[in-house]
Amino acid sequence: RIDGKRLWNSLMAMAEIGATPKGGVKRLTLTEVDRAGRDRFRGWCEALGLAVRVDAIGNMFARREGRDPGRLPVLLGSHLDSQPSGGKFDGALGVIAGLEVMRSMADLGIVTEAPVELVNWTDEEGSRFGHSLMGSGAWAGVYPLEKVYALQDVDGVTVDQALTAIGYKGGHPAAPFPADAYFELHIEQGPILEKEGKAIGIVTGAQAQVWYDAVVTGQDAHAGTTPPAARRDALVCAARIIDLVDRMMRARGEDGRGTVGQLHVLPNSRNVVPGEVRFSVEFRHPDFAEIERLAAQFPREAGFLARDCGTPLQLTELFRLPAQPFDAGCVELVRQAAARLGLPAREIVSGAGHDAVYVARSVPTAMIFTPCKDGLSHNEAESIEPEEAEAGCQVLFEAVLARANR
Amino acid sequence: RIDGKRLWNSLMAMAEIGATPKGGVKRLTLTEVDRAGRDRFRGWCEALGLAVRVDAIGNMFARREGRDPGRLPVLLGSHLDSQPSGGKFDGALGVIAGLEVMRSMADLGIVTEAPVELVNWTDEEGSRFGHSLMGSGAWAGVYPLEKVYALQDVDGVTVDQALTAIGYKGGHPAAPFPADAYFELHIEQGPILEKEGKAIGIVTGAQAQVWYDAVVTGQDAHAGTTPPAARRDALVCAARIIDLVDRMMRARGEDGRGTVGQLHVLPNSRNVVPGEVRFSVEFRHPDFAEIERLAAQFPREAGFLARDCGTPLQLTELFRLPAQPFDAGCVELVRQAAARLGLPAREIVSGAGHDAVYVARSVPTAMIFTPCKDGLSHNEAESIEPEEAEAGCQVLFEAVLARANR
Ligand SMILES: NC(=O)NCCC(=O)O
Ligand SMILES: NC(=O)NCCC(=O)O
Repeated sequence: RIDGKRLWNSLMAMAEIGATPKGGVKRLTLTEVDRAGRDRFRGWCEALGLAVRVDAIGNMFARREGRDPGRLPVLLGSHLDSQPSGGKFDGALGVIAGLEVMRSMADLGIVTEAPVELVNWTDEEGSRFGHSLMGSGAWAGVYPLEKVYALQDVDGVTVDQALTAIGYKGGHPAAPFPADAYFELHIEQGPILEKEGKAIGIVTGAQAQVWYDAVVTGQDAHAGTTPPAARRDALVCAARIIDLVDRMMRARGEDGRGTVGQLHVLPNSRNVVPGEVRFSVEFRHPDFAEIERLAAQFPREAGFLARDCGTPLQLTELFRLPAQPFDAGCVELVRQAAARLGLPAREIVSGAGHDAVYVARSVPTAMIFTPCKDGLSHNEAESIEPEEAEAGCQVLFEAVLARANR
Repeated sequence: RIDGKRLWNSLMAMAEIGATPKGGVKRLTLTEVDRAGRDRFRGWCEALGLAVRVDAIGNMFARREGRDPGRLPVLLGSHLDSQPSGGKFDGALGVIAGLEVMRSMADLGIVTEAPVELVNWTDEEGSRFGHSLMGSGAWAGVYPLEKVYALQDVDGVTVDQALTAIGYKGGHPAAPFPADAYFELHIEQGPILEKEGKAIGIVTGAQAQVWYDAVVTGQDAHAGTTPPAARRDALVCAARIIDLVDRMMRARGEDGRGTVGQLHVLPNSRNVVPGEVRFSVEFRHPDFAEIERLAAQFPREAGFLARDCGTPLQLTELFRLPAQPFDAGCVELVRQAAARLGLPAREIVSGAGHDAVYVARSVPTAMIFTPCKDGLSHNEAESIEPEEAEAGCQVLFEAVLARANR
């Protein structure tokens, strides 16, 4: 069995890097804090004798050789970057549990048939550069590397500059290499497992999504002198679009998701009618056809609102992601491991995007979820119990072993 | 007559300090840029032989003695601070025209009966610390000094710290001293004079206003996993309040003003349901009774919206300002000066707040407006013609002389 205490201690050690006063983590991708997290992870891997290689988008691979040099590697992992005010477990659980799997194999003298590789994917969160699953997307060939390098954060820093600055622009190609399977453990980030008292979510796939950047252009004007008819208030227009996103979500019932999470006002002064507002929009749904309908409806209706306000809207679709079913064989290994361990489990579709979604395009993939308190994530209060982490890690261990020794 | 060319050159020299690429000015109150503007102004005054004193809130007074030591001073001036993306003339025109009045008196060997004092008021704009007319308000006793010192900007810097940092926390009490009159020249910042082809606005008073700080508290949550019913989205609530402000403005017809100019989202990440939104709200109307009605209606209706969203709203009224009529005698001096000079003029009520509003509580006061291009202000494109500045300055010169020699 894996060592639950060691797993928890390493999770807490990683959570020190970028720790926030409210008990969360701020380890934004490709920052100095991210570099510190990567360095600690690399140190742990090398202490175990694993060779660590870094690819051109900063994805890190720590390899443990198998008995059979002809076998393709079994991959496992997740991401170490976090939201600006994120939790300790979103991403880190999958990476640190992967490390615990490697450590347990070493402790137990296990040599698998196939090699095993532990991955830390770059920029899963997407909050800095606008593309979630960026590192795995570049690896999978979904995003051309040159395009990804040119993406900018709000301060105009490019991915290329940020990668170089933290010393994690590696020499290995960011391209999918043949692999036998990929397993990712993650917290559910939603309320379902906790509500039903399940220790394990057998993830059968992830839902579809579409993301936008929106810019509304009005005209800066004096708040005291500018009469209603002369105003072109970019924030009033943005407000109506925010309300539209919420209504479009609710019209889809319980499965609908629609969010404006990021918004900047210019010039952002109390007595100035705002001349420009920039904001993000995203929709999600388990059914890609619904996302296609949303992606047809939203630009049209938002455009009508903008026309009414006299404030032109520029809408850029950042990406559109179909629902991704996972590999039946890999999912079955997760199911069997949970059953063998006597852990209450249920099938679940992921509401969040995960690197597994892009990896699944070229590698048989499955995911394991563990519950999190009140279903809260992307929140500093994100919380799980040590036994929950241990159970998830044990399932990961068994699924990986089963696959690598088949 | 005053020297229109010298006036324009000094306006342009002041506009260099904090110049923005789009031709505007960013000279936010109590910043290093503001210090540079103040230093240049002080240097000009001292070169003229005027004694400059600074009071405890940073208001600057440059005094020119009169013939009669028993007479109260006639004040004139405006403000040198600007919006974050402001224009070259909002405030600066009144101060630099006041300087030109002083210079012309020196050139022409004029010694007035009463002393004349040129004022640069601190933080007229209010965009940094949330209270417009802050320096004149502290001087007039509207804001207790200790309360003003404790006001913070978005970075938590207090007025006291900022004043000290730029070396403009002066030794003179920030309290109204007896004065005979106050005259302020300002651009209209609205479209009326330009539309009617008038060179001079004879300002009879300023309209009423009320300002708020609003904080909506929701809960950070994952945009992909959090179902509609579980969301407490602070930005959706804020959006509905922004729309409410706009509707309440429009319900008042042409005279209504209602603006949300500043807004910050937390944590401001694309895939996080926003847990907190902070924003400003202000309403204005020529009739204070209408402001009283708005101030009763708005908290109630905004509160209903917040309750519907499940996101508590905390509303803080920053200040409520009655309409302020100016002094009939001083207004008459402006009217006579314009008539004597043959300048087309009309009476006008100020849509913007001005330091003159607080000064008028203890000193007989009047204002002079000049037109500005397309009525635009609080915008880097703010623009006036040299002849318009000269005409306004000439009226100011004559009104001040008439009062100081009466
Ligand atoms: N797992 C996770 O929170 N991923 C971030 C990308 C997303 O928004 O789904
Ligand atoms: N004149 C001017 O723009 N004052 C700023 C204060 C206000 O918002 O009215």
